[in-house]
Amino acid sequence: MIIALAGGVGGAKLVDGLAAVLPPAELLAVVNTGDDFDHLGLRVCPDLDTVMYTLAGRANPETGWGLAGESWQFMQALERLGGETWFRLGDQDLATHVRRTGLLAQGRTLSEVTASLCAALGVAHRVLPMSDDPVRTMVRIDEGEIGFQDYFVRRHCEPVLRGLRYAGAEAARPAPGLLQALGDARLRAIVLCPSNPYLSIAPLLAMPGMRERLRAARVPVVAVSPIVGGQAIKGPAAKIMRELGHAPSALEVARHYRGLVDGCVLDHADAALSEDVAALGIAPLVTATVMHAREDRARLAQEVLAFAHQVAANPPGAR
Amino acid sequence: MIIALAGGVGGAKLVDGLAAVLPPAELLAVVNTGDDFDHLGLRVCPDLDTVMYTLAGRANPETGWGLAGESWQFMQALERLGGETWFRLGDQDLATHVRRTGLLAQGRTLSEVTASLCAALGVAHRVLPMSDDPVRTMVRIDEGEIGFQDYFVRRHCEPVLRGLRYAGAEAARPAPGLLQALGDARLRAIVLCPSNPYLSIAPLLAMPGMRERLRAARVPVVAVSPIVGGQAIKGPAAKIMRELGHAPSALEVARHYRGLVDGCVLDHADAALSEDVAALGIAPLVTATVMHAREDRARLAQEVLAFAHQVAANPPGAR
Repeated sequence: MIIALAGGVGGAKLVDGLAAVLPPAELLAVVNTGDDFDHLGLRVCPDLDTVMYTLAGRANPETGWGLAGESWQFMQALERLGGETWFRLGDQDLATHVRRTGLLAQGRTLSEVTASLCAALGVAHRVLPMSDDPVRTMVRIDEGEIGFQDYFVRRHCEPVLRGLRYAGAEAARPAPGLLQALGDARLRAIVLCPSNPYLSIAPLLAMPGMRERLRAARVPVVAVSPIVGGQAIKGPAAKIMRELGHAPSALEVARHYRGLVDGCVLDHADAALSEDVAALGIAPLVTATVMHAREDRARLAQEVLAFAHQVAANPPGAR
Repeated sequence: MIIALAGGVGGAKLVDGLAAVLPPAELLAVVNTGDDFDHLGLRVCPDLDTVMYTLAGRANPETGWGLAGESWQFMQALERLGGETWFRLGDQDLATHVRRTGLLAQGRTLSEVTASLCAALGVAHRVLPMSDDPVRTMVRIDEGEIGFQDYFVRRHCEPVLRGLRYAGAEAARPAPGLLQALGDARLRAIVLCPSNPYLSIAPLLAMPGMRERLRAARVPVVAVSPIVGGQAIKGPAAKIMRELGHAPSALEVARHYRGLVDGCVLDHADAALSEDVAALGIAPLVTATVMHAREDRARLAQEVLAFAHQVAANPPGAR
């Protein structure tokens, strides 16, 4: 059994690849909820939805978010009524948020709600929020602190990012299904998908004891770098790394995960960095990591699984 | 200035006729909120929406509710997710409920929210909820008491109705705009539109002192019977009257409004009842009351206004 930690588009693609090569009982996708927010009275969970929609084969390949073949009647009508339209909610996507919000209001946990939505969408593999407790990524900019979606969507990541805070993480408990999987004797590896380390993976790692829990599982932990040739495949990772004072490079990603991961998957474009990665005590794998086509996902997933199998889990003390 | 008390489709049509013959400053439509309910986390106000959409020229003429040219992507997606779909919310209509719910959550009153929605929809005439406080029509059936929309939409009015209760009416205050209009020296008449007396007009009259306030305005009060030839033009009025122990007839409507109205407008089909109506101390007007075509609305409105002008307001003591 494999645990895959994922955030948005890149992470969802690798989860989709893993789902193509692993039966449902052998994969648990654990998804960032730091991007979640309440909007128009609805609980919106962008990363969970991206993973769900991708696994359901219904993700919109053009936008990277939302559903393929979406319509926008609601949004247009809301605009005419003077409502907030900076965060785009398609007519069908809206049903996901309304259903989720309703089930949460009935007292169901986000894990339970996500399982229900996945079942309805025909997603067989397990998708879990990292926590049933709220964690909200907050972005510090010169004007003060704003919510992640305010920064990411409303402000188009334009303000200089001065810092990140994962509000609520200090009190958040990992989802019960994650704790159970970490203690499962069948667990073989933990994969950090090519998601933004600061926005998608860090909120999960910010929960108390989370790094220790991952290490305590005593299985190989491998990360796939979302930075290729100094650029992010998608999203603001490179800009954010720069503004946080880090060079945007796959080496810096490996350094960021030092002490946590046993192996790091780099793109051919970063082959020259593999010795530096190895010098960190992290095994490098150089391959084609950019998932242009659907078949790239399963191919990369296979390579990542084989790599994890080769890489020995270092004992916690060694990292 | 005219105050028109209205509920659903029939009421909305006469309000539309009045709006066609009166400038915006001379008409106030006061709308039943007993049908309002919270559904899918949204505040839904069916009668207010029917009046608004009708005045905006955007009502769906086939259904009698919702918007013309509506799409149903949200509803279909919600159905696939296992959500509640017995109350149909179109993609564009949904924006009204989301916007209303959001503004109410910000602390705006239902009167203010309705004004904002009307402005956005291009409705120039004033539309007011009967109250900013919640009043909820509850239906007693053999199994117990259920909410109005449960009875009306989910159960298709099939259970035998044993009684009605206007929950919250005892503590509800009339909307400030209604009280102001009742005290306005320019007020010339009050029109009870052809809406269900028990479902659309009764919740308003159930607010403490409401009948007295209407009489104290000392202007003619005229009602248009929603019952024609012993049948309701639309909706369950005849069934409800029967189940409440009243013969479904225009005479019974007049008897129901005895002490409140000075005149009652009957359809040609009920011409034979006009003497009995007059015997109640209520002036009858016999005309064509069924508004098939758009032009019927303005014609009936003109006739009702002329009738109100002729009918002297009886002093409160006389009724």
